[in-house]
Amino acid sequence: MAQIVKPSTLPGFMELLPQDQRVLDQMKAIIEKNYRDKGFLAIDTPVLEREEVLLAKGGGDTEKQIYRFTKGKTDLAMRFDLTVPLARYVAEHYSHLSFPFRRYHIGKVYRGERQQKGRFREFYQCDIDIIGNGSLDLFHDGEIPSIIEGTFMDLGFDAFTIHINNRKILNGFYQAIGIEEPQNVLRIVDKQDKVAWEVLEGELAELGLSKEQIQSITEFKNISGTNGEIFEALEALSLDHEAFQTGLEELKTVVAVAEMLLKDEGHIQVDLSIARGLDYYTGTVYETFLDDYPKIGSVCSGGRYENLAEHYTKQSLPGVGVSIGLSRLYYQLNEGGLLKDYSSAPADVLIVAFDAVRQEGLKLLKAYRDHGVRAIFYADKGKVGKKFKYADDLGLPYVAVLGEDEVKEGSVTLRNMTTGQEERLSVEESISRLLG
Amino acid sequence: MAQIVKPSTLPGFMELLPQDQRVLDQMKAIIEKNYRDKGFLAIDTPVLEREEVLLAKGGGDTEKQIYRFTKGKTDLAMRFDLTVPLARYVAEHYSHLSFPFRRYHIGKVYRGERQQKGRFREFYQCDIDIIGNGSLDLFHDGEIPSIIEGTFMDLGFDAFTIHINNRKILNGFYQAIGIEEPQNVLRIVDKQDKVAWEVLEGELAELGLSKEQIQSITEFKNISGTNGEIFEALEALSLDHEAFQTGLEELKTVVAVAEMLLKDEGHIQVDLSIARGLDYYTGTVYETFLDDYPKIGSVCSGGRYENLAEHYTKQSLPGVGVSIGLSRLYYQLNEGGLLKDYSSAPADVLIVAFDAVRQEGLKLLKAYRDHGVRAIFYADKGKVGKKFKYADDLGLPYVAVLGEDEVKEGSVTLRNMTTGQEERLSVEESISRLLG
Repeated sequence: MAQIVKPSTLPGFMELLPQDQRVLDQMKAIIEKNYRDKGFLAIDTPVLEREEVLLAKGGGDTEKQIYRFTKGKTDLAMRFDLTVPLARYVAEHYSHLSFPFRRYHIGKVYRGERQQKGRFREFYQCDIDIIGNGSLDLFHDGEIPSIIEGTFMDLGFDAFTIHINNRKILNGFYQAIGIEEPQNVLRIVDKQDKVAWEVLEGELAELGLSKEQIQSITEFKNISGTNGEIFEALEALSLDHEAFQTGLEELKTVVAVAEMLLKDEGHIQVDLSIARGLDYYTGTVYETFLDDYPKIGSVCSGGRYENLAEHYTKQSLPGVGVSIGLSRLYYQLNEGGLLKDYSSAPADVLIVAFDAVRQEGLKLLKAYRDHGVRAIFYADKGKVGKKFKYADDLGLPYVAVLGEDEVKEGSVTLRNMTTGQEERLSVEESISRLLG
Repeated sequence: MAQIVKPSTLPGFMELLPQDQRVLDQMKAIIEKNYRDKGFLAIDTPVLEREEVLLAKGGGDTEKQIYRFTKGKTDLAMRFDLTVPLARYVAEHYSHLSFPFRRYHIGKVYRGERQQKGRFREFYQCDIDIIGNGSLDLFHDGEIPSIIEGTFMDLGFDAFTIHINNRKILNGFYQAIGIEEPQNVLRIVDKQDKVAWEVLEGELAELGLSKEQIQSITEFKNISGTNGEIFEALEALSLDHEAFQTGLEELKTVVAVAEMLLKDEGHIQVDLSIARGLDYYTGTVYETFLDDYPKIGSVCSGGRYENLAEHYTKQSLPGVGVSIGLSRLYYQLNEGGLLKDYSSAPADVLIVAFDAVRQEGLKLLKAYRDHGVRAIFYADKGKVGKKFKYADDLGLPYVAVLGEDEVKEGSVTLRNMTTGQEERLSVEESISRLLG
């Protein structure tokens, strides 16, 4: 007798039962189809890379979370996102790629995060990026929202908003009011959804900001309205600052393209509070929220960056992209009971043949499959009730019962598992029914 | 200026350019569709598990190759196949699964093998298994070959042979001639394709086998012919040995079911030389060879096992399954120039609009996409020739050119990138052409 090891996965690693896996896989397929149909090319990089490569940029907060180890003489690490591998890929294969390089990548990444609900240590990211060679037209920033829109509409959501901003507007505004390094200020302002503004004003004052500066920041963060109204308000600031004006022009261009390509212009909203990290993004930034479930947080985020692969090549490679954290999205929709009915039954019909006509059951299986019916055959012994239960548990819509009577008349009894209704049909009729 | 790290993957890790990735992905999709359409359910287990779990069985030869490391206080390992995780999964989720449990799993596994051509340290396996609860009807062993057949036919191969045997026949035969532990003998006999039989007879003699035993083995290994002829020859041996007779009956049953379900009976061949490892498989065993490229070795192998999960549960869980080593298969087909033309273009058309009519170009992009045409827009500056080259490099079949003349008459010039022919069409006509 073998020693028994307790069968369990590591904490923080998602693993689903087949019926749930089917839903997640269907969501993945919807995302992938949207990416592919918009002309993005798949890449599939190794999960393991040299630590030196994955940490070329320096890890920052992520560094502690990385799974790394030494095998032989090589320091290895598991990828913790899909962006660093993309940078390495584009630098390595530069001369074999056509630019703008539109790539998508759906794959698992690894972060040994502190355990908390809804955070996973292995999770799927679904990324698209468009990489230019030396330069990249703003059209691509404007194209991204329509791809997000198509994806989330196909995922069954209609009420969502893609919040868009431009980092140059933010940086330019702060510089224009005399704040050269706005990181610390932004960190405070970013808390405005959770903390009362008066409290944050106090924190800004502690940082050494003047009343006038705080007043300007308050006015700036209060700018809201339609996209057009926000643009007007920003122009009315009359800030004589180059980055600010460049950012404003860029955002106007990007929003104009986006509004033209979106099915519903209401899906995009300029939002000056969106900042997206502090050093990576340099222009357009996006965050997407499901209107009815804002608590979930952003379900698709990203932006424009100046230079994808500076740690691997001297080529200038600007790009723009967004990412969907699929595992987290699935988890949160599931927790909230918000999952749509994506998944079809794993087979169209279960064939149950009585022992005396088992051979005919096999012939029926072959006939069904030859006609494209997704049929499975119940071969093991057992009562009919047990076999029906098997079909039920799997969510199959039909059972085809074959006894001696049916075989004599070349028919089959088709049981609708939803209604319990049974009907005797010719094999051909049953095929039509099952394919219909 | 950032420090430059050489962008390169680890040796032995496959990474493909986008056009090659498309081929591999298409092969993966074909395999997955075949598995799904036969009613197999997907599972997706973590790449990382507790070392104790993955090595519950003991690693044998594989153990040295496993990527393992410690994080915090936990010994971790990367999965080296999909069978051990399946065993753990079924044991862990036993009470939530419906048996027979038909599962497929397509995923990457990791083995730090000694480097050699065509061997990868990260590679895709594509597995199907059917797991019974306590028992599993032989029908399932007979069903497997038709699934292999459908898969390889859809992959574009017609000339392949699924070699089938039963371990009980082998073990029974050797026991019947007085060899209780045939492992060492089988290891010698297995070399018959590479080493002259006379040499192997010498090795068998060195092992202490009698002339009569060697004579019997020679007769046994020379049994060949049609499936029916082999069955007759095996019966003619008149071995009074229970396991042998059980194995023979099982094989006859399995081959009868297989021949009934196969599109082409010629795709299955009883082959008494197939053994498939030494301790895992207990009944039916399969190996699949492409008739025209035998050097590639088996492209799909597997078999029946007595007890999937004995290291994790006391439940008896017999099963049968096969696996396709996709990365290796892709590599070998590619090396041999044997890859079929699986892949379609990554988009249907590239839109090239002159600056003055860029807005209309965007409208055309939206119109195309709304009608399901997979269109991309060339937004960056550059000469028309460069844009055509971009479409060519990506393998796109058409470029839609939009200038002022076209806009005036509501038309578009569609350039066929294969023939170089250009045609001016209405937008509607161009959509029909691109979808056709």
